Amino acid sequence: MKAFDFLNVPDNNGITMVMDKGLPPSYIDDYLKVCGEYITFVKFGWGTSAVQDKEIVKEKIKIYKKHNIKAYAGGTLFELCHSKGLYDEYLKECKELGFGCIEISDGSMELSKEDRKNAIRKAKQNGFIVLSEVGKKSIEEDSKLTTEDRINIINEDLRAGSDFVIMEGRESGKSIGLFDEKGNLKDKEFKKMLEYIDTNKIIFEAPNKNQQVEFILSIGSNVNLGNIAYEEVISLKTLRTGLRGDTFGKI
Amino acid sequence: MKAFDFLNVPDNNGITMVMDKGLPPSYIDDYLKVCGEYITFVKFGWGTSAVQDKEIVKEKIKIYKKHNIKAYAGGTLFELCHSKGLYDEYLKECKELGFGCIEISDGSMELSKEDRKNAIRKAKQNGFIVLSEVGKKSIEEDSKLTTEDRINIINEDLRAGSDFVIMEGRESGKSIGLFDEKGNLKDKEFKKMLEYIDTNKIIFEAPNKNQQVEFILSIGSNVNLGNIAYEEVISLKTLRTGLRGDTFGKI
Amino acid sequence: MKAFDFLNVPDNNGITMVMDKGLPPSYIDDYLKVCGEYITFVKFGWGTSAVQDKEIVKEKIKIYKKHNIKAYAGGTLFELCHSKGLYDEYLKECKELGFGCIEISDGSMELSKEDRKNAIRKAKQNGFIVLSEVGKKSIEEDSKLTTEDRINIINEDLRAGSDFVIMEGRESGKSIGLFDEKGNLKDKEFKKMLEYIDTNKIIFEAPNKNQQVEFILSIGSNVNLGNIAYEEVISLKTLRTGLRGDTFGKI
Repeated sequence: MKAFDFLNVPDNNGITMVMDKGLPPSYIDDYLKVCGEYITFVKFGWGTSAVQDKEIVKEKIKIYKKHNIKAYAGGTLFELCHSKGLYDEYLKECKELGFGCIEISDGSMELSKEDRKNAIRKAKQNGFIVLSEVGKKSIEEDSKLTTEDRINIINEDLRAGSDFVIMEGRESGKSIGLFDEKGNLKDKEFKKMLEYIDTNKIIFEAPNKNQQVEFILSIGSNVNLGNIAYEEVISLKTLRTGLRGDTFGKI
Repeated sequence: MKAFDFLNVPDNNGITMVMDKGLPPSYIDDYLKVCGEYITFVKFGWGTSAVQDKEIVKEKIKIYKKHNIKAYAGGTLFELCHSKGLYDEYLKECKELGFGCIEISDGSMELSKEDRKNAIRKAKQNGFIVLSEVGKKSIEEDSKLTTEDRINIINEDLRAGSDFVIMEGRESGKSIGLFDEKGNLKDKEFKKMLEYIDTNKIIFEAPNKNQQVEFILSIGSNVNLGNIAYEEVISLKTLRTGLRGDTFGKI
Repeated sequence: MKAFDFLNVPDNNGITMVMDKGLPPSYIDDYLKVCGEYITFVKFGWGTSAVQDKEIVKEKIKIYKKHNIKAYAGGTLFELCHSKGLYDEYLKECKELGFGCIEISDGSMELSKEDRKNAIRKAKQNGFIVLSEVGKKSIEEDSKLTTEDRINIINEDLRAGSDFVIMEGRESGKSIGLFDEKGNLKDKEFKKMLEYIDTNKIIFEAPNKNQQVEFILSIGSNVNLGNIAYEEVISLKTLRTGLRGDTFGKI
């Protein structure tokens, strides 16, 4: 039972994806007691899992599983392995470590449409949940993608079998994807995108509070949000439920 | 005994109020070993306590009590309950959970002067320490409050029974209350305020280091400061005692 | 064995110096399981050790030693003690607490060239590793140092016996030393400096990711970096090894 349960705080089921960029096991175990129930996915950011001991990665994934949280390695690691012709080894290692999902992306390299589709299909065939990501890590490269491009990639990925498509926001949330250099949502691009996509299938990376607020107020409490810092999971839940000034009385 | 005790670092007794926006119990217990003696109050920020399990909230409050730290729920939760006619239930739940203080605010809603006074009195009658807050969560709404308005509210609150009045600074410390859009102290407004208030009764929310430095250098080491992040409690103590470059030789 | 070891991630041996500004013991113990092998030095920032209990400081230093991490107190504490004529007491206390290094600096006070040399020599004679720092805490004071001044201090310090010289970056990394007000590396000054110094002997304070990336791409994966936040140690390792977008394919 929650504190102040007489308030009957409305529930919601938007996906929350958090970022683990090298957290220690006991800390995770401790933190999830407070907020574990509000997390759907955890991403071991970019290639961070490859510089951590195998046994620690396994231990962390087990802790997440206890709380029904699905873990996956960042897309950058997929890209490195795929570009070296090691995709099969990658899938095998992910399975052995206990990762339940695979992220397919081309943020730092070129990936042909055909290779992208095949990578998605192969991960699905191997029993993984697939999250594919749209966007480039470099500001210059990312700015070359038009809104139409992004919409097309989203819908092609979903047809190829992706369970969810992630809109790139990076850890900073600035000058990338739907965000301008101050981290504000680009209104025109965002509205256009909403006409052509199914938001239930999209996870918007939204590391900063103002972005979380904008997505919640425009799409609703159930919007799927990602790249949430650990310490912000409880805050995000209050934003989704009108328990913080920014969304108070607006949910 | 402190390390380097031969330095005879001068003591000070300014209030430090920290923010807990969903921290886990073991982490708190561990952290307070290092800095617990420097904390007076802990605020379970805005409505965060209402999305945490009752048992965890109780456990956390107990840990704080071990270190003589008084806990309270953020004003937003008071506002939500009061606006729903659930103030009595709110006080009862706070008592049952172990909170020792009540924050009275109107950051996200309207509260008449009469209701504000009554809320303060009722909390006092129920044995709570009362902290009331001056300021609005919305930048637009907050900017409508003149310095005179703020001075009047402060002094009325104290007459009604508030033990301390909190100057709103939010978690960001920008474009709010005494802070401009860059988070710097608005000099003219601040000086005017100082003429009419008793700073011993005020807790200035000052989440950013430059703000803590400004308050310490203008009011003194004993200034009451709030919305301090956990990881900054030790740093704040060094600022208060001239052990950091920013106040070195100035205390 | 690391996860994804089939990638044969290239090793590197650049020094990483992290900042501890009052962390609790169990948290440290837990975190170092994940990233301890990537840390060379830990700095108890500025005067933070003097407001922590002696027993806790000792306990923390012991935990660091288990992971072969050398600890030292921030230069500000040296400056306070030296300016009060308590340098001998300072060295004795550092030894008793278990610190293995001494930082010599003049960020907040004046120190003659002769006193600086003597301080370095005395610390060496007492068996400490010596790290001396170049730079001023105040933006105004620091801006008076020319690149030539900095180069001269570095080389004089090394001749006097410093094991490493630290380029001041503070916790913020802005408007200080080699960084402009936005935290970008000042190209002209940096290049000039590179002509006259041995970068193996320099630790560049680089608290922000863009700075870490710039140093790695211009000097190499083995560049010595300091003032790294705890949560960024794993991230820094991925930057050094091309496992993050910013350095992917460039190492």
